[in-house]
Amino acid sequence: MDESMMQCQPIITLLTDFGLCDGFAGVMKGVMLQIAPGARLIDVSHDLPPHSISAASFLNEWSFGYFPVGTVHLCVTDPGVGTARRVLVVENSGHLFVAPDNGLLTPIFDDEGKTTIIHASNRRYWLDKVSHTFHGRDIYAPISAYLAIGVPASEMGGEITDPVRLTAPPLDVSPESILCRILYIDRFGNLVTNLDTKTFGAWIASKPCNDRQIIISWPGGRIQGVSKSYREKEPGEVLAVFDGYDRLEIAVREGNAAQITRLGIGSQIGIVTT
Amino acid sequence: MDESMMQCQPIITLLTDFGLCDGFAGVMKGVMLQIAPGARLIDVSHDLPPHSISAASFLNEWSFGYFPVGTVHLCVTDPGVGTARRVLVVENSGHLFVAPDNGLLTPIFDDEGKTTIIHASNRRYWLDKVSHTFHGRDIYAPISAYLAIGVPASEMGGEITDPVRLTAPPLDVSPESILCRILYIDRFGNLVTNLDTKTFGAWIASKPCNDRQIIISWPGGRIQGVSKSYREKEPGEVLAVFDGYDRLEIAVREGNAAQITRLGIGSQIGIVTT
Amino acid sequence: MDESMMQCQPIITLLTDFGLCDGFAGVMKGVMLQIAPGARLIDVSHDLPPHSISAASFLNEWSFGYFPVGTVHLCVTDPGVGTARRVLVVENSGHLFVAPDNGLLTPIFDDEGKTTIIHASNRRYWLDKVSHTFHGRDIYAPISAYLAIGVPASEMGGEITDPVRLTAPPLDVSPESILCRILYIDRFGNLVTNLDTKTFGAWIASKPCNDRQIIISWPGGRIQGVSKSYREKEPGEVLAVFDGYDRLEIAVREGNAAQITRLGIGSQIGIVTT
Repeated sequence: MDESMMQCQPIITLLTDFGLCDGFAGVMKGVMLQIAPGARLIDVSHDLPPHSISAASFLNEWSFGYFPVGTVHLCVTDPGVGTARRVLVVENSGHLFVAPDNGLLTPIFDDEGKTTIIHASNRRYWLDKVSHTFHGRDIYAPISAYLAIGVPASEMGGEITDPVRLTAPPLDVSPESILCRILYIDRFGNLVTNLDTKTFGAWIASKPCNDRQIIISWPGGRIQGVSKSYREKEPGEVLAVFDGYDRLEIAVREGNAAQITRLGIGSQIGIVTT
Repeated sequence: MDESMMQCQPIITLLTDFGLCDGFAGVMKGVMLQIAPGARLIDVSHDLPPHSISAASFLNEWSFGYFPVGTVHLCVTDPGVGTARRVLVVENSGHLFVAPDNGLLTPIFDDEGKTTIIHASNRRYWLDKVSHTFHGRDIYAPISAYLAIGVPASEMGGEITDPVRLTAPPLDVSPESILCRILYIDRFGNLVTNLDTKTFGAWIASKPCNDRQIIISWPGGRIQGVSKSYREKEPGEVLAVFDGYDRLEIAVREGNAAQITRLGIGSQIGIVTT
Repeated sequence: MDESMMQCQPIITLLTDFGLCDGFAGVMKGVMLQIAPGARLIDVSHDLPPHSISAASFLNEWSFGYFPVGTVHLCVTDPGVGTARRVLVVENSGHLFVAPDNGLLTPIFDDEGKTTIIHASNRRYWLDKVSHTFHGRDIYAPISAYLAIGVPASEMGGEITDPVRLTAPPLDVSPESILCRILYIDRFGNLVTNLDTKTFGAWIASKPCNDRQIIISWPGGRIQGVSKSYREKEPGEVLAVFDGYDRLEIAVREGNAAQITRLGIGSQIGIVTT
């Protein structure tokens, strides 16, 4: 694909908590297509838990790398809409991110690649009329579309170095144990932790044990061994598995782990070997 | 974008109560792409309250103007499917609308621009085989796609002047007060009224009062002042705000106003100043 | 549309039980667009009942023919993910299907056209890194995209003749009666049977009776006559109608037939004439 085609069919992803019922995602796409008629518009999700900055942050960090370099990622869960919080455009590793300055993009700032953070205050790239309650349509959508047609982020405002950051839940790795936490709960009730495959792989590689000697526990629950797939256990059994997010997940085969374990966002999970 | 590109990538929006589970929107898009392979297909919503003509009417009136001139808007909530109700193609301000003749398009007929209303009875632009229960696929989808590739509405049937009209809920504006009504409830339980920003702005401009002197009330409830954003109140507090629909909305910060106030579609809201 | 355009904008449909909340469909599309930047990506459904192979099978069989010849249909409901079940690419009547070897494609194998079934074991067309839990992204999405840009199915693996087959619910047609079964329940609670319009039409054509003389019954329920549309009955009344799936459906006007009749998947329905 040569550069002219890139410009012709740039990709914009959408990740919001606006839902699909009420037309909000639709009108954002209308606004985008007025500015960038050739853009490909791909929904990542519009059903984030309302106002959950951490869920938006998690799904954005995970999903963006599956899209081509040059993709614009609009990420809006914005409990502060209508207040003075800033609008950010962030460049990292050839991807562009458009989001409110509420910490949502923290994992992107902290990525190894070079990050440029722009406070997108230039109203030339907003809609003429900006409401107090729907900046997704009035600010984030047009900015994303202008980026998609090649307007440089640097035209949209000045660089800043003090974006709001979320404190990530701590991951505590020692030679004896790992302490991780529940970061996200999917629609099946699967409990996704902040322990990634890579960190776990490095930790377990140093140990003379097999998979069955791994103990995963929390107050009131205990799993022996990490499963390769949901199918290794019987229906209704609690299991631990590295999931599609590349994270350790507590799940129940054909069941709802959040309901059964009563674990929730932030709950601590311990890992040791015997 | 020159005219040839317009024809290459026309936009069709979809607004229905068919849901996203059962494949209905998907096969409509298949039918459209057979006729108009280059069309951009944008969902406004498929999760309208089933059979709610007023919700479809409201979201269509609000959303269409965010799309480029030339867009075809398919709007189907069709409790009368399989009966003799007519199929309409309506042109207004360069936008095209395809919908059943059940009043859904009333706000479009009543718009200031010149409106042409066609009874689309020409079966040449329907699928060969028409079911009794799924005209969305068999009639509305192909008509929308033929319009998108440039078939004139006038080829689809004769002009009519007697479409079914919905009586809009009355908006009663006097120098002393405004009486409005709940028109739509979004998925968060926010209560959207028929009072638009413009009407309210003109009314309040004539009054020597500040925002805090506005009283919004209903049997069992009362709000002092119009908020600029949801964040001006504490979680759980009832507030009034001009929302993303450009309408006065009764909302509860981080709560469900429909449940808390027990107001519903058609409930009356009064506005006075002190 | 000439061949070069076909290659430029091939269509991939997506039918899964992954839901729309958690970003799974979105990242599959990202993977597809990296391989097939011009592909049109059309959702048929992502809200299949979790792990329901029969629902996936039913919606796929019904929907695919509404899309142009050449379309690639990704169908994934995959309770066996992470186990040894094979990945299939199937060609039939110019359509291509990508699915796990769990019986989902049985109606496609059994179609009248010539069917080619490939065990897509060539890892060149998978992502480099394959997880144990998300083959939708790692295997099915890239295979679909490579097919869309013209890679022949035959390059993806060897032909097989022993795919897993689902036993279809029996349809028992005799001169006196038809016994059919509930195959699918839509989001409104409508009960879709395995009796298609064509079979019913041939059966009733041989009988000297009118529509009102048809009796549809099950333990605890009885309907006289097949309605042309939902509107022929009063709100709350149980009715039988040939629906948008071209199947006999037990429905309740403005109500939920599954709840009211207590019929479920597999329940038997009898049809006789008086």
